[in-house]
Amino acid sequence: ITPYSYYVYLDEADISVDYTLSHQSAIYELNFGKDEDVAVILNSRNGELNWDGTALSGYQNLVNNTKVYLYLVPEQTPESVSDTHASGRNANLVLSWPKENKKLTLRYGISFIDEMQARKNLEREVSGKSYSEIADAGRELWNTELSKIEVSGGSEDDKVLFYTSLYRSYERPVSISEDGRYFSAFDGKVHEDFGRPFYTDDWIWDSYRAHHPLRILIDAKREEDILNSFLLMSEQMDNFWLPTFPEITGDSRRMNSNHGVITLLDAHVKGLKNFDLEKAYLAGKGAIMEKTLAPWSGAPSGELDKFYHEKGFIPALRDSEVETIPEVHSFERRQPVAVTLGTSYDQWSLAQLAKSLGLNDDYEYFMNASYNYRNLYNKETGFFHPKDKNGNFIQPFDYRYDGGMGARGYYGENNGWVYRWDVPHNIPDLISLMGGKKQFANNLDAMFVEPLGKSKYAFYSELPDHTGNVGQFSMANEPSLHIPYLYNYAGEPWKTQKRIRTLINQWFRNDLMGVPGDEDGGGLSSFIVFSQIGFYPVTPGTTEYTIGSPFFEKVKVNLGNGKYLEIEAKNSSFENKYIQSASFNGKSLNSAFIDHFDLMEGGKLVFEMGNRANRSWGIE
Amino acid sequence: ITPYSYYVYLDEADISVDYTLSHQSAIYELNFGKDEDVAVILNSRNGELNWDGTALSGYQNLVNNTKVYLYLVPEQTPESVSDTHASGRNANLVLSWPKENKKLTLRYGISFIDEMQARKNLEREVSGKSYSEIADAGRELWNTELSKIEVSGGSEDDKVLFYTSLYRSYERPVSISEDGRYFSAFDGKVHEDFGRPFYTDDWIWDSYRAHHPLRILIDAKREEDILNSFLLMSEQMDNFWLPTFPEITGDSRRMNSNHGVITLLDAHVKGLKNFDLEKAYLAGKGAIMEKTLAPWSGAPSGELDKFYHEKGFIPALRDSEVETIPEVHSFERRQPVAVTLGTSYDQWSLAQLAKSLGLNDDYEYFMNASYNYRNLYNKETGFFHPKDKNGNFIQPFDYRYDGGMGARGYYGENNGWVYRWDVPHNIPDLISLMGGKKQFANNLDAMFVEPLGKSKYAFYSELPDHTGNVGQFSMANEPSLHIPYLYNYAGEPWKTQKRIRTLINQWFRNDLMGVPGDEDGGGLSSFIVFSQIGFYPVTPGTTEYTIGSPFFEKVKVNLGNGKYLEIEAKNSSFENKYIQSASFNGKSLNSAFIDHFDLMEGGKLVFEMGNRANRSWGIE
Repeated sequence: ITPYSYYVYLDEADISVDYTLSHQSAIYELNFGKDEDVAVILNSRNGELNWDGTALSGYQNLVNNTKVYLYLVPEQTPESVSDTHASGRNANLVLSWPKENKKLTLRYGISFIDEMQARKNLEREVSGKSYSEIADAGRELWNTELSKIEVSGGSEDDKVLFYTSLYRSYERPVSISEDGRYFSAFDGKVHEDFGRPFYTDDWIWDSYRAHHPLRILIDAKREEDILNSFLLMSEQMDNFWLPTFPEITGDSRRMNSNHGVITLLDAHVKGLKNFDLEKAYLAGKGAIMEKTLAPWSGAPSGELDKFYHEKGFIPALRDSEVETIPEVHSFERRQPVAVTLGTSYDQWSLAQLAKSLGLNDDYEYFMNASYNYRNLYNKETGFFHPKDKNGNFIQPFDYRYDGGMGARGYYGENNGWVYRWDVPHNIPDLISLMGGKKQFANNLDAMFVEPLGKSKYAFYSELPDHTGNVGQFSMANEPSLHIPYLYNYAGEPWKTQKRIRTLINQWFRNDLMGVPGDEDGGGLSSFIVFSQIGFYPVTPGTTEYTIGSPFFEKVKVNLGNGKYLEIEAKNSSFENKYIQSASFNGKSLNSAFIDHFDLMEGGKLVFEMGNRANRSWGIE
Repeated sequence: ITPYSYYVYLDEADISVDYTLSHQSAIYELNFGKDEDVAVILNSRNGELNWDGTALSGYQNLVNNTKVYLYLVPEQTPESVSDTHASGRNANLVLSWPKENKKLTLRYGISFIDEMQARKNLEREVSGKSYSEIADAGRELWNTELSKIEVSGGSEDDKVLFYTSLYRSYERPVSISEDGRYFSAFDGKVHEDFGRPFYTDDWIWDSYRAHHPLRILIDAKREEDILNSFLLMSEQMDNFWLPTFPEITGDSRRMNSNHGVITLLDAHVKGLKNFDLEKAYLAGKGAIMEKTLAPWSGAPSGELDKFYHEKGFIPALRDSEVETIPEVHSFERRQPVAVTLGTSYDQWSLAQLAKSLGLNDDYEYFMNASYNYRNLYNKETGFFHPKDKNGNFIQPFDYRYDGGMGARGYYGENNGWVYRWDVPHNIPDLISLMGGKKQFANNLDAMFVEPLGKSKYAFYSELPDHTGNVGQFSMANEPSLHIPYLYNYAGEPWKTQKRIRTLINQWFRNDLMGVPGDEDGGGLSSFIVFSQIGFYPVTPGTTEYTIGSPFFEKVKVNLGNGKYLEIEAKNSSFENKYIQSASFNGKSLNSAFIDHFDLMEGGKLVFEMGNRANRSWGIE
């Protein structure tokens, strides 16, 4: 298996299958081993299929009036076809060939516009081309993208993990422009793209953390097109609200918060220009102030939102209380701590954008709101703790288990131990809430050793997204990604170095285990790409990266601005995970932080690695 | 980490720990990095500790009046010790040294006899010896044992898995002879060993399958001493009944059935002589006919046993029925199908031993009983199915889930899909019960694809020993080990080859995953050793092995009789898992079975391997 081809031998049936693909088209080659007649069944799941004597066309219905169209041409004309038309559930046609046909070649195009466009995509990309021509073109395209970061040194598994992760970071979002047009499920219409590809299927709650920042670093032009697509979607939808979770079939408003605004700010502060900043601000402000903050909802704001904007936190229900607010999703619930913390960060981002746009009143309003996480901080316990509508903490309370399925009654997918660290936009303030750096580091230590406290079956049946555990820490879901880097803020960078190496070694594996949980189309993978090259964007929306434990002896990053960043980590290995000393462009570096614009100038970041912690490196 | 030494660096405390060991003694070297005073806490858990100015002695209470004694001498005399005596729960003494003592060396002996013997063990084995002398001796000892099977070719992971498994196959049982004496928890006395080591801690329910057969193949003398220890235990206990699950602390009678008798038969038919066959038979017969068959019990037989011996099956209770038989363990329950099938095999073994001893009436009685599994075969479903005391199948019934925790109400640890194959002593009859080879193979196929049918949390919380799933098959527990080999009996050896390679590749891993479940001190590991060299003893008690998919290009087995068995598997790899052709000592081999005595003559077993199944090999 490669990014551009797949081969499988089906041993029971004795059939070899080769597959390679282009952008909106692909080719199958099937080799039949048995001395029997040959047949292929095409099934539309739910839709329509037609056979015209040389080609098969049709579509599958997706949700929200979206259809995916197919146009398929077998190179060998079938001896018979079961029918000329099929429609409905499991609509299928059977194409049959005599047993002398040991080899079949099937080319097809797909489209979200119509069958004619599917045919055009097929003809433009794969008609008249051989399997190997198509595969070679795919190989070249992937080599171009993946060689934007070249690594050497490190173990073979490290390299496989790295390039697999970099590959996965290209999985989403996808351009659905076809010959200059695209079907938008956001308004159900076909649009001209005016020469600028339209992207969708961006799982923003997951991707704002590392996925977008990675693209800003190595693929800024594409990132601008993606952000421009966010704004097009906002315009196409009924309200001018930033998308929350844009998919092929429109905005599913999945998860909580409106973190697209963080991504827009991140691009802005890092100097990306080719999108409309004022529109970005207004769409973000609309999503946060006019749309409900209730998770998984695109409804207008209601009672819950009024409460949040007035009181500065989302009120929680006790187990015994029945939900009365209509826009709260019955399974997803209020997630009051997650929404309060997440919206604090979103509002901090609005504040920064307002400042850039000279909107001082808005800046002040949103800066004030950016401290809302404080309203749920429990000084007694040092955790973020749900409050009822009267402002009283829900008691008694267990941060490990409370909140029901996925802790959604209070947090969201992960438990209180993970949300304890969910203030990426103001870590100094979180440190001070916790009582200073020493206590903050002790709290981090405690998370990594606190036992599950239940059988794994009981724990995971309630918290199925909270896997990849080291203590109560979960390596399997995006709210955790920045946590191991937080030791850097508390004067103990050696523990960040230790945790990053051991967590990745334990949970991201070139074997059966693969990734430990919710990969989310690049969400976890881009954490790996950053972490393996040696630094990480803990706070998207700022230009700061923080340094972890670089995996490779040499890394060369093509910054896309004509400059290259080289990272050397001398003697780096799993044992030699500790930074002994560092320099940037010849100047000694004793800080665990480095700025985006400094890196974008290119040059050489050099680390000396060793097998014992240098507890004084990186504490300046 | 090696079999004879362990090193760990404790990064938080900045202490390096080196550990190496001899037979009944060991040595710790501790290096302290921090500039602080040094202390070691010794904790007896529950027992007594004394400090006499140069040595620390004492014991920990185990169960059943068994104590493990300690005698420890620090090379550097402590500056202070917290007390001269401590006893009771968590009895502990703290030994302290000034901070100049950056390195500590602690030698200790252990004993099950007394502290004096612990001291003698220390003095005999490690006194006056350096860390490296002790480690080197351990290394040499392990190299001698592990080089009884030499492998080459195969992947690095294959080799690591192989030698790790071979190492683990030596984990149990253990010789507890100390200077010619041993403490037996079977009668609470110290015995002379008369020059023959006494072994215990043999988990027979797990080890009779592959673990004992492996030792018969490469370490027959030790196996004879182990079987002789079974007979000594039988004599030492109140009744002359074969042990079921002998541990350091006596026979815990764990699990079900009395499979020690299979092991004794297996040794006998394979020509091992140095144990008393008549005693073996009588002890086995006693355990099966006079002791209860209720799982986890050493009580005399009762009502349930009377029923079994008269009716030929253990009756099951419906969920609504309350247990009334006192010897049935409240958690372990009756396991009626597992006990009926397991006892059929045990009684078949008694029949074979009776025949060897010329006891024809016994032979006939037990041969008749050896078909008792037929009494629970459900022709309608093709599964072994629990019956109530009136002989009616329990209905309705789900072979996946029914039986409560660990399916113990009906089976035991694994579900009805695994126990479907639990007639290793009469596979031709099982094939015929199922309606012939084709149906038998279809039933095997079905097991590997039948979905769990529940969330993994729900499934594993009920069947925590039924992990390592491929469909309903569980690679994680011993009742499954022979199942992938059963295709050989149905004329489809290529599927055995495929399953063995893919199951081992998926579930026994040189990485974080390790082994998939209940390793049981060599139980699973010896399955790996056999399977990787290329054959397996599906029916202990016969001299037949069946051939799987050899992993290594070359294997050389020292048979201990002056002869060597070489196994060549040309071109073997994960892809080339299929046997194309085979020969033994130059003669073409087209059977998937080979006899123990043929192998013990030594010589060369040669396989040609390939990446496509040869569906006609091995069907003679």
